[in-house]
Amino acid sequence: MDFWYSIGSTYSYLTVMRLPEVERAHNVKFRWRPFDVRHVMVEQNNIPFKGKPVKAAYMWRDIERRAKKYGLSPKVPAPYPLPGLVLANQVAMVGVNEGWVEDYTRATYKRWFEAGEPAGEEPNLSSSLEEIGCDPAKVLAAAQSESIANALSAATEEAMKLGVFGSPTFVVDGEVFWGDDRLEDAVMWAQSIEK
Amino acid sequence: MDFWYSIGSTYSYLTVMRLPEVERAHNVKFRWRPFDVRHVMVEQNNIPFKGKPVKAAYMWRDIERRAKKYGLSPKVPAPYPLPGLVLANQVAMVGVNEGWVEDYTRATYKRWFEAGEPAGEEPNLSSSLEEIGCDPAKVLAAAQSESIANALSAATEEAMKLGVFGSPTFVVDGEVFWGDDRLEDAVMWAQSIEK
Repeated sequence: MDFWYSIGSTYSYLTVMRLPEVERAHNVKFRWRPFDVRHVMVEQNNIPFKGKPVKAAYMWRDIERRAKKYGLSPKVPAPYPLPGLVLANQVAMVGVNEGWVEDYTRATYKRWFEAGEPAGEEPNLSSSLEEIGCDPAKVLAAAQSESIANALSAATEEAMKLGVFGSPTFVVDGEVFWGDDRLEDAVMWAQSIEK
Repeated sequence: MDFWYSIGSTYSYLTVMRLPEVERAHNVKFRWRPFDVRHVMVEQNNIPFKGKPVKAAYMWRDIERRAKKYGLSPKVPAPYPLPGLVLANQVAMVGVNEGWVEDYTRATYKRWFEAGEPAGEEPNLSSSLEEIGCDPAKVLAAAQSESIANALSAATEEAMKLGVFGSPTFVVDGEVFWGDDRLEDAVMWAQSIEK
């Protein structure tokens, strides 16, 4: 099962924080797949909140209520949108290669949503990387290399081919489940296939 | 608790069909509040599916999967969007006054989603009204009166003042819950207030 997400997506905060518990409870494992949701949304003319203040206000209230249900205490609204979205996810791509993508994503979301520090820029970037035992200078150099930029673009193309149009999205055997509120449906789908 | 909806909304099919069971299971009662969601969306520049084929295809698949979970068998995609959206909801406003809004809404959605007959136009309108024991000619004349047009506009303004921006929406003591997938959250919210 793949967990497609972009650091920069608001609802993905919920999934990033609660996925370990869901994995434990259902004995499943997701592969963390960062991609550039902004590129997909621009491409598909899908603008969820910009210029939509009523819907945006609802989104923050909804996230706040659901976070509480999951035992989380975000400070909402968090800074949004993120100017550093692409860099945040390029760092995540380095983490995919080096095995710390999940830890970094959780650390950076925590700072973004709980301390009000935007992901993808300083001080969030270096603090999050240090917290998980990485060398910020080394990782940030790698994150801005051509090969990582290409890897993020390739992942984004792969996501679009699968029918992913937003974040978070769970893909199970070709079935697409969009939204943190479809996480349990995705898990049930996976378990119904196994039987 | 108010159930704000527009006949013409796709996800509202799920709520319209399963609300009686949710009401029974949780011993709650919703007031059915038709409004003109298209007016709100145009006003707020919120265009969920038009020109977004990937998201629209996902929406139908998602409705199909969730419908199955609720024991429903819609033929998807149903005709969409509905040219007769306003008339469909004007008829519903007559039903609010005369006490058959819920029966009519369910009958017209059933024909729209299960027989492929668009709501808000013939043969769906007259068949649905006849099915619930109404005189189609009489109801359709009333539905197109100035007072009913005004009542639908007033309901739409009231919805917007509450922060409603889409359909279905549940409003419980000022808290707004958007989407069929928030119905249980709305019920839990109402029950937590009672305690």
